[in-house]
Amino acid sequence: MTARTPGRRPGGPDTRGEILKAARESFASKGFATTSLRAVAREAGVDAALVHHYFASKDELFIESMALPIDPRQVAARILDGPTDQLGRRVITVFLAVWESPDGQQRMKALLRSVVSSDDVARTMREGIARLILQPVGQALGVPDAELRVALVASQLMGLAMIRYIVELEPIAATDVADLIDRMAPAIQHYLTA
Amino acid sequence: MTARTPGRRPGGPDTRGEILKAARESFASKGFATTSLRAVAREAGVDAALVHHYFASKDELFIESMALPIDPRQVAARILDGPTDQLGRRVITVFLAVWESPDGQQRMKALLRSVVSSDDVARTMREGIARLILQPVGQALGVPDAELRVALVASQLMGLAMIRYIVELEPIAATDVADLIDRMAPAIQHYLTA
Repeated sequence: MTARTPGRRPGGPDTRGEILKAARESFASKGFATTSLRAVAREAGVDAALVHHYFASKDELFIESMALPIDPRQVAARILDGPTDQLGRRVITVFLAVWESPDGQQRMKALLRSVVSSDDVARTMREGIARLILQPVGQALGVPDAELRVALVASQLMGLAMIRYIVELEPIAATDVADLIDRMAPAIQHYLTA
Repeated sequence: MTARTPGRRPGGPDTRGEILKAARESFASKGFATTSLRAVAREAGVDAALVHHYFASKDELFIESMALPIDPRQVAARILDGPTDQLGRRVITVFLAVWESPDGQQRMKALLRSVVSSDDVARTMREGIARLILQPVGQALGVPDAELRVALVASQLMGLAMIRYIVELEPIAATDVADLIDRMAPAIQHYLTA
C-alpha cells in the first residue's frame, strides 16, 4: 500500500516534526473535529501508520502540536480528584502550579499571546481546551448549565494569567500564590456550584 | 516667547493629531507619571499653550491618546454611585455596557489586542486604568488591601472580555447580558467586600 502511493516516504529524522507541523496547520485551519490523522499524514507526506507510531491518538497529536506545558487530561483528572465543595480551590491551585513553574510560564505566555493575536490559534485552543478540560469538569458537575459555569471559571483564569503574567499589574503580580488561592477559590466555587 | 523658540509653529489643521501622536509615544516609552505636557509639546513641535488649548489636563490627553470608548473617570463615578453591597453588580453592569455597544466593542477589542502584543501599550494602560479607575474605586472601599481586591476584579473583567469577545468561547459568547450579570456580580462582590 505504501509503495504504491506517490510522495510518501518512510520515517526520517525529521518525520515527527513534519507530522507536528502538518497537524498544527490542520488544527488551525480546519479545527479539531475535522482534522483526521489520515489527512495529517497526507499533508506531511508520510504513511498514516507512521502518525500512529508517533502519536497514540488525535488528542496526543493535538497536545504535542500545541506544545502545552502539561497534558490537559492530567489537569482535568487533578481537578476532579476530591470533594465537590473544594473544586474551586483545586482549580486555582492546579492552574497556578502550571503557571508558576518557570518552563510552564514561558510556554503558557507564548500560547496566550498567540491565542490573542491569531484567530486560528484561538479557535484551535478553544476547541482543544473545551474538549480536554472544560467538558470533563462540566460533566462531573452534573447540572444542565455546567458548560456556562465552567466557561465562567475559564474567563477568570484567563484574566488572572493576563493580569499577573502579561500585563503584570500590581499588586496581583507580586501577591503570593497561597494568598491568591485563598481569595479566588470562593469566587471560582461560586461559579461552579452556587 | 513662542516667536523666540525655533521649531515651534502655530496650530495647523493637523496640530491636535500631532499632539496626540507625541503623547501616545511619550506615555508608551516614559509612562504616565514621567510624561509632561511641556515635553509632549516639544515632541510635537508646538507651543505648550496649544496643548493646553486642546486638552484641559494630562488625564484628558491620556484618555484621548488611548482612544478609549468612554472616559474612565465616568466609569469610576458610575461604579461608585450606590450602596456598597451592590458594588459588584454595578461593576459588571458598567463593564458590559461599554463592551456591548458596537463602537465600544470595536475600540476595546483593538485596545485589548495591543495590550497583549505590546509591552509599551500594556504599561500605559496599566498605569492609566490603575490611576483613573482602580484607585478611586479602591479608595472608596477604605480597606488596607483594597488595591489587591480591585485588581482581582480587573482580572475577572479582562478574562471575560477575552473569552466573550476575543476567543468567543461558547456558551459565554452567546449568554445574554442579564444572565452574565446575575452570575458574575456575587463573585465580583466577593473580591471587593468579603
